[in-house]
Amino acid sequence: MSKGLFITFEGGDGSGKSTQYRLFAEYLRNRGFDVVTTREPGGTRISEKIRDLLLDPECTEMDDMTEALLFAASRAQHVEELIKPSVEAGKIVLCDRFVDSSIVYQGFGRGLGDCVSAINEHAVRGMYPDVTFLLDISPEEGRKRNGKTGKNDRLEKQSMEYHAMVAEGYRKLAAAEPDRFIVIDASGSIQKVASDITDAFEKRYPEL
Amino acid sequence: MSKGLFITFEGGDGSGKSTQYRLFAEYLRNRGFDVVTTREPGGTRISEKIRDLLLDPECTEMDDMTEALLFAASRAQHVEELIKPSVEAGKIVLCDRFVDSSIVYQGFGRGLGDCVSAINEHAVRGMYPDVTFLLDISPEEGRKRNGKTGKNDRLEKQSMEYHAMVAEGYRKLAAAEPDRFIVIDASGSIQKVASDITDAFEKRYPEL
Repeated sequence: MSKGLFITFEGGDGSGKSTQYRLFAEYLRNRGFDVVTTREPGGTRISEKIRDLLLDPECTEMDDMTEALLFAASRAQHVEELIKPSVEAGKIVLCDRFVDSSIVYQGFGRGLGDCVSAINEHAVRGMYPDVTFLLDISPEEGRKRNGKTGKNDRLEKQSMEYHAMVAEGYRKLAAAEPDRFIVIDASGSIQKVASDITDAFEKRYPEL
Repeated sequence: MSKGLFITFEGGDGSGKSTQYRLFAEYLRNRGFDVVTTREPGGTRISEKIRDLLLDPECTEMDDMTEALLFAASRAQHVEELIKPSVEAGKIVLCDRFVDSSIVYQGFGRGLGDCVSAINEHAVRGMYPDVTFLLDISPEEGRKRNGKTGKNDRLEKQSMEYHAMVAEGYRKLAAAEPDRFIVIDASGSIQKVASDITDAFEKRYPEL
């Protein structure tokens, strides 16, 4: 390849995203590709410093817009320093979460809406994924896998609504960009999901 | 006042901005106003943490867009946590630098252009200053006051061009928003500039 590929993995908690992303990297390396694995927020020294700020348990007073702008700042550095140069060097970059996570969690989840996409256009500067694997799972199943079945009815209900919002948000994004998204049913076994991902990849890029 | 005022001070290095901002706070307090003084980047705990990242001498690899987004993130927290509640409580908020600094230094200076205003619209959410005092000074004078007259011709020339760009950038912004900006000739003595500022304030708000 003269130019590499940029592939992202998206999905809610309990979707098995991080496991599948590692297995897919292994599959690509076995096939001889030069693979870079990275994650968001993070991936570069400065992005990890911003990640520390985002995850700092003391920063409870953080405003939602501040959070969205920090994610975008971390992403701008990640794109410019790691993702873009790696893809230009012909590598396959696999990233655990990217802009779609911001749109679902900050845009839909925190109610910031369309401005999340607008802010991220500046952060990404055209470096959108070639392919996004969406690991789709029902809210019930995601919650179960995540071990969050508690006894508190109110929290239980909130958790269900939250998982439903995330699943629904991702489905909306996938429907709006069918050429970029590959939706994978993540309810099966690890092996089944992994082979669905590699099958879909081979179908999308038969020439590779 | 049922609603307070939000007043910012802008100007290049050597314009005497920070001195004049402190003197103006003193003048307002002597007149009995409840004054909040703050600065950017900073002003809240989270904003100061972001400031530390922005000023970290180790972060030499920081991308220009990352920098602009970090300034905006710091500002979003500052507006939401300090500036907006203070103005709504009837106070006069004086801020040393605000959005105009980002437009001049990142937009014009780093060549990021209009996207700096666009990003900051999200950070500010309508909380633009009621008045902005621009301390206007010639590039030659600014450089002289800042003690940056060196012997290296190349750096000397760069420094001159930079000061000229900043002065020119601020003048453009002031010309575009004459209702908000009050341009003060900052070449006189500290006392002269301070009285020009208070005179302009009293003329703008004769009812206060």
